[in-house]
Amino acid sequence: MKEREKMSDKIIVDPWGKELVEDYSRLIKEFGMKEFDAKMLPNPNLQMRRGVNFGGTDLEQIASAIQNKKPFYALSGIMPSSEKIHLGTETVIQNIKYFQEQGAKTFVLIADVESQATRGIPIEEGKKRALEFHIPAYIALGLDPNKTNFYLQSENKKVSNLAVIASQKITENEFRAIYGSLHPSKIMSAFTQVGDILYPQLEERMPGVIPVGIDQAPHIRMVRDVARRLKANYEFFLPSALYNKYTSALDGSFKMSKSGEEKAKIEIPEKDLNLLAKKINKALTGGRVTIEEQRTKGGEITKCVVYEYCKNHFIKDDKILKQMFEECISGKNLCKECKAKYGIPYATKFYEDFNEKFIKAKKQINLGKINFVE
Amino acid sequence: MKEREKMSDKIIVDPWGKELVEDYSRLIKEFGMKEFDAKMLPNPNLQMRRGVNFGGTDLEQIASAIQNKKPFYALSGIMPSSEKIHLGTETVIQNIKYFQEQGAKTFVLIADVESQATRGIPIEEGKKRALEFHIPAYIALGLDPNKTNFYLQSENKKVSNLAVIASQKITENEFRAIYGSLHPSKIMSAFTQVGDILYPQLEERMPGVIPVGIDQAPHIRMVRDVARRLKANYEFFLPSALYNKYTSALDGSFKMSKSGEEKAKIEIPEKDLNLLAKKINKALTGGRVTIEEQRTKGGEITKCVVYEYCKNHFIKDDKILKQMFEECISGKNLCKECKAKYGIPYATKFYEDFNEKFIKAKKQINLGKINFVE
Repeated sequence: MKEREKMSDKIIVDPWGKELVEDYSRLIKEFGMKEFDAKMLPNPNLQMRRGVNFGGTDLEQIASAIQNKKPFYALSGIMPSSEKIHLGTETVIQNIKYFQEQGAKTFVLIADVESQATRGIPIEEGKKRALEFHIPAYIALGLDPNKTNFYLQSENKKVSNLAVIASQKITENEFRAIYGSLHPSKIMSAFTQVGDILYPQLEERMPGVIPVGIDQAPHIRMVRDVARRLKANYEFFLPSALYNKYTSALDGSFKMSKSGEEKAKIEIPEKDLNLLAKKINKALTGGRVTIEEQRTKGGEITKCVVYEYCKNHFIKDDKILKQMFEECISGKNLCKECKAKYGIPYATKFYEDFNEKFIKAKKQINLGKINFVE
Repeated sequence: MKEREKMSDKIIVDPWGKELVEDYSRLIKEFGMKEFDAKMLPNPNLQMRRGVNFGGTDLEQIASAIQNKKPFYALSGIMPSSEKIHLGTETVIQNIKYFQEQGAKTFVLIADVESQATRGIPIEEGKKRALEFHIPAYIALGLDPNKTNFYLQSENKKVSNLAVIASQKITENEFRAIYGSLHPSKIMSAFTQVGDILYPQLEERMPGVIPVGIDQAPHIRMVRDVARRLKANYEFFLPSALYNKYTSALDGSFKMSKSGEEKAKIEIPEKDLNLLAKKINKALTGGRVTIEEQRTKGGEITKCVVYEYCKNHFIKDDKILKQMFEECISGKNLCKECKAKYGIPYATKFYEDFNEKFIKAKKQINLGKINFVE
C-alpha cells in the first residue's frame, strides 16, 4: 500500500491522467469544496450514506430546490469509447438516479464528438455503441428512460456554440494550471464539456448538480469560473457538484482506470462469472501474515478491495454488510472464507441482476422508448 | 513610407494582428507558396491581372478542375461584427465571384459563433447583421445568390464536429508557432475555421480554393497540415489558396485594418460621398516636394494610395487606368488634378453603383431568394 501512503503529502488531481489521491480531507480544502454530509439531502442513497460521496460544491442550492420543489437539473455524460462501464461510474449513475427521483430534470449526453477526437471512435460508431450498450446499461442500473433527456454532442448545436463562447472567458495560464496542458484537443474537449454542463440552463435558468469522480474537481471549478464570467449575458446558476472517491484496482492500487489493465479491474458487465470469481479470489484484502494473527487481531478491512466493492456496489443490505464487516474485524472469517461467503456471491448476484435488467432495457430502446433531445 | 522600408528584413505574418508586410517575394518563399501567374487561369479577373493577387498554394488542381470541368469549391467567410466591409475584402469577393463563374460550388459562411466569441456580438445579432448587410453587400459586389450556399456557423453541426476532430491533429508547439498564442478562444476560432474550410468535402470529395489576404497564409498552411493528417479517415483534398496583398490605409501605412481608425480608411459602404471625397483629397500620394519637380519627374505612383485603390477597386476599364497612370508619371497631372479627374469620380461611381445594387440585393433577400444550407 505504499502508493496510498506516499500520496499524503502531495495532491495532484488531473482530469486526464491517473494520479493517485488519498487524502480526501486535504482535497476538500484544496478545491474549496465542502465535506459532504449525507443528512443534507432527503433519503440519501447507499453511496451517499456509505461515504463513497465525500465532498460537494454548492449543494445547498440543490438541497433547497428539492425541499421547495423548485426546478433543478442533474447531468452526466457517457463516453462511448468501449462497451464497458467502469465500476466507479456506477456511483455516478446511482447519484443521477437519486437526483432524478428527487425531481431533477435529467440530462445524459453521449460524448460522441469527444470520443472521436480523443479516442478515434468514428461519430457514427460512438452513437451505435451508446444505443447498443451504454444507454441500456444506464437504464439497467436504475435510470428512468422516460424521465431522462439523452442527447448526442454531435447533434447539439447549442453545446458547441456555448463551448466557443465559454472559451473566451479563460486565460491560457488558468487553463494550463487546471489541465497541465494547452493541447488544442484538450481545449476543445474541455470547452465542449463546459457547454454540456451549462446547456440545460439555456432552456431554463435553474441550478444543476453534476455528480462526478474527484478527478473532475478542477474541471468543475473552471465551469463555475466561466459561468460566473458569463453572468452578464446568461445569468447562469453556478453548477453544483457531488464528488465520489476513486475506486481501487483489484491489487489495491489507488485508482482503477478505464484504460488500465483488463485483469486488474472489475467492470460492468462481467459476462464470465467464473472469471469474476477468479478476479475476486486474487484481489487484495486486509489479510494478516499468519492465520493465527488474523484469528486474533481480525483483518485490516480498510485495506480490503473486496470489502470496498461490496460496500460501494454489491451489497445493498446494510445488515449483511455489517455482518461481513464484523466477521472480518473479529477474525471470524479468514479472507478466503469471506470471499466465498460475501465477495463472490454478492458480486455474482449484482451481475446477474444487471444482465437481466440490461436485456429488458435493450428491448425498451429497440421500441424507441427513450427521449433524444436536440 | 518608413514602415514599408523597415519591413524588408523582417517578416511577421499573424492572422490576428496588424503586422506589416512588404516583401511579398520573400513571403512567397517563407510560406512555401508559389508566385501567382494570372495566365494559369482562364479569363483572369481584374484583381488577378493587376497584381492584387500575388501568390497561391496548389492552384494547379483548381486550374485543372476548371479546365476539365471537374467539381471543385470556393469558400469564404463573413465576420458579421460591424456593418462595414473592408476594401480589401472586395478583392476576396471578386475572386469568389470569379471561381463561381468558372463553375465552383460556392460556400459563404457567416462566422456568427466566432463573432460572438471574439467580439461579443450575440449570435442572433450576428445573423441579423449578415442578413441585413453582409449578404446583400456580397451580392451587390457580384456574387450570384442562386449559386451560393450560405450557412451560419451556429447552425452547422458538421463544422463544429470536424473542428473538434481536427484539434487532435496539431501539437501545442505547432499551434503556438502559427498563432503566437494558445489562448483557448484562439484555438476554438482557429479550429472552427478549419472545420469551415474542409466542410464542403464532407459532402463531396473535391478540391477547393480559399481566396484570402496574405495574413491568412499561416492558417491555410495549418489547415493543409490537418487535412493531410486526417487523410486516413477522410481522404480530403488539401485546400488550395489564392492570396491577395494588403490594402494600404489612406495615410499610406501598410495594412488597412478592419479595427483601425475610421478616418484612416475607406470602406464599403461609404454613404456620405462628400466625406469620401474629403478622405481621398487627404490620402497619401506620390507627389514631389515642388510643383516643378513633379512636372519634370512625374509622380511617384507606387507610393500613391489613390492609384492603388483605383487600380484594385474603382477603375474597371484598363484604358482609363492606363491614362491615369501615364498622366501621373509624365507629370501631366498634379496630385490634386488627378484626384479630381480620377480618384474622386471613380470612387463615387463605385459607391453609387454599389448602393444601387445593394438595394436590389436586399429585396432579393427579403423575398427569401438565398440558399441557406445546413
